[in-house]
Amino acid sequence: MSAPLPILLGGLLLLAGTAHADELRNRASAIFQPIPEQVTEVRGKTINRDQAVLGHKLWFDPRLSRSHIISCNTCHNLSIGGSDNVTTSIGHGWQKGPRNSPTVLNAVFNSAQFWDGRAKDLQEQAKGPVQASVEMNNTPDRVEATLKSIPEYVAEFKKAFPKDKDPVTFDNMAYALEAFEVSLTTPNSPFDRFLKGDDKALDAQQKEGLALFMDAGCIACHNGVNVGGQGYFPFGVIKKPGADILPEGDKGRFAVTNTAADEYVFRAAPLRNIALTPPYFHSGEVWDLEEAVAIMGDSQLGRQLKDNEVKAITAFLHSLTGDQPQVAYPVLPASTATTPKPE
Amino acid sequence: MSAPLPILLGGLLLLAGTAHADELRNRASAIFQPIPEQVTEVRGKTINRDQAVLGHKLWFDPRLSRSHIISCNTCHNLSIGGSDNVTTSIGHGWQKGPRNSPTVLNAVFNSAQFWDGRAKDLQEQAKGPVQASVEMNNTPDRVEATLKSIPEYVAEFKKAFPKDKDPVTFDNMAYALEAFEVSLTTPNSPFDRFLKGDDKALDAQQKEGLALFMDAGCIACHNGVNVGGQGYFPFGVIKKPGADILPEGDKGRFAVTNTAADEYVFRAAPLRNIALTPPYFHSGEVWDLEEAVAIMGDSQLGRQLKDNEVKAITAFLHSLTGDQPQVAYPVLPASTATTPKPE
Repeated sequence: MSAPLPILLGGLLLLAGTAHADELRNRASAIFQPIPEQVTEVRGKTINRDQAVLGHKLWFDPRLSRSHIISCNTCHNLSIGGSDNVTTSIGHGWQKGPRNSPTVLNAVFNSAQFWDGRAKDLQEQAKGPVQASVEMNNTPDRVEATLKSIPEYVAEFKKAFPKDKDPVTFDNMAYALEAFEVSLTTPNSPFDRFLKGDDKALDAQQKEGLALFMDAGCIACHNGVNVGGQGYFPFGVIKKPGADILPEGDKGRFAVTNTAADEYVFRAAPLRNIALTPPYFHSGEVWDLEEAVAIMGDSQLGRQLKDNEVKAITAFLHSLTGDQPQVAYPVLPASTATTPKPE
Repeated sequence: MSAPLPILLGGLLLLAGTAHADELRNRASAIFQPIPEQVTEVRGKTINRDQAVLGHKLWFDPRLSRSHIISCNTCHNLSIGGSDNVTTSIGHGWQKGPRNSPTVLNAVFNSAQFWDGRAKDLQEQAKGPVQASVEMNNTPDRVEATLKSIPEYVAEFKKAFPKDKDPVTFDNMAYALEAFEVSLTTPNSPFDRFLKGDDKALDAQQKEGLALFMDAGCIACHNGVNVGGQGYFPFGVIKKPGADILPEGDKGRFAVTNTAADEYVFRAAPLRNIALTPPYFHSGEVWDLEEAVAIMGDSQLGRQLKDNEVKAITAFLHSLTGDQPQVAYPVLPASTATTPKPE
């Protein structure tokens, strides 16, 4: 007995769909990788649990700032996508920083840190905001004096860096922060589940968006495990966006390399969890993800993306939101009489 | 065979110590009560778990502030004793508030909230800082618009307040915050373990301090479960402290009652976890707990406490530090296109 036509057709469509999904997955897998379930080493060194435990406390400790009210988490807030969701961060004295705060989530997978890649890794990065006058406005000496004034911290640094004679250092603070930060990854996004074989993890529009993301050339800059975060590219390859979005005064990587070719060059934004971290671009001037996609099409690809194309790519970008880190809010050791006072 | 003399004497001393501890405990138990293990109701209403879960998110949500960078937890930081450990809080635009931030820990046990008791309960209290221009600088309308723009919050409010037609209200926000805050208690302090029968929970100096705290008259204001937080008393019953500590412009409860007798009257500070929450007094001008104790002796009791007395009372106050709440750092629902932007 032969199957009724609708079932047959349904079966054929299903087969076609699977074939299409497999093809899409194969193409995508050559360009992207899923977020690993766990990061166990950093720069070839196995992560020491005591360092990560210490880093977890330091991450939330407002005493790393001169005012004692700004912590790493203030601008890289783990409850809202590892960023602060304001145009540019507000720091010491309510000063506005020059650029939008990049997310800490999956930052370990970026080839370098900051919008201009001026820090080669998270340890080096961590030292920046602590000292920046518009951010935490502290000094290495003052941070060390603060940490050394708190016996529980001294004990934890000793435990985390057992080979060091004088373990309570600014460098070790930064290393402990890095050891914590490498745990801030977001595996299991719909896109990653699709990459791993689950055809249903993406809906039709997201699959269309993924195909378009690859076909239109977005992948020239946004590829790899972080869908970006690897290379440096001019903002405005084809057409410079307006000064509202690309302020003239911020020449990006030029400030790092002092090379004319690096004017208005930035690290390609990693797009993991991008739906959680508006506003967009280094200027933080665009709140709407669809608008950001359209601007990218125009400025980087010289292509006026159609409305349905923008929507499909945006739908795909939403599939990059993974499981957010589940983190305890730590109880911090108390200050003592010798702890430098907030200023 | 009779016991050797040293053992006999040791036994007698132990008995004497136990008798003394029992007497001290009996006296103390008439004045103080231990922090309960759990608070299950507030103002006669059983706490609804959905309200507490919602309140936990709201507590950490910086979008309750106009700037989107200040949350309840900014000034009542659960990692450092439920306060901010700065002289007076820094709020919107880096403005300094008029008074030192009181801890949220065990605040449910205070008879009223704020230094001047102007809010009768935590629900009423929660509405203050959200609206204060020097704190979160928001408005009820803007908060409601923010919460209503986030579908997950709308669903959580519906679940938490199932009988309400329009559950996403400023009042319900405050009630949910209260439902969370009542969980922020610190049972199991050495003092509470002593009250419950553990003689060894306090050392000799702490016991001496406790006896002195009762004998010298500190308990006239600092009594009950929170060792304070119940009544209103003039700061400077006997002798007004200097204007650095008691600024002339802040007349305390007078602003609430407009009664001359309430000039420079404040709610007696609850002393639970006081060792964790410097600086002290409503002005936040005293960082050292021993100094604060000496000032209290002088201004409230007209007594120049001796150095060893100050040290003993301070040692007792350290025994009021209980188990700090273990709280997860929540993942918050994402903003949408209609969420009011930070200002």
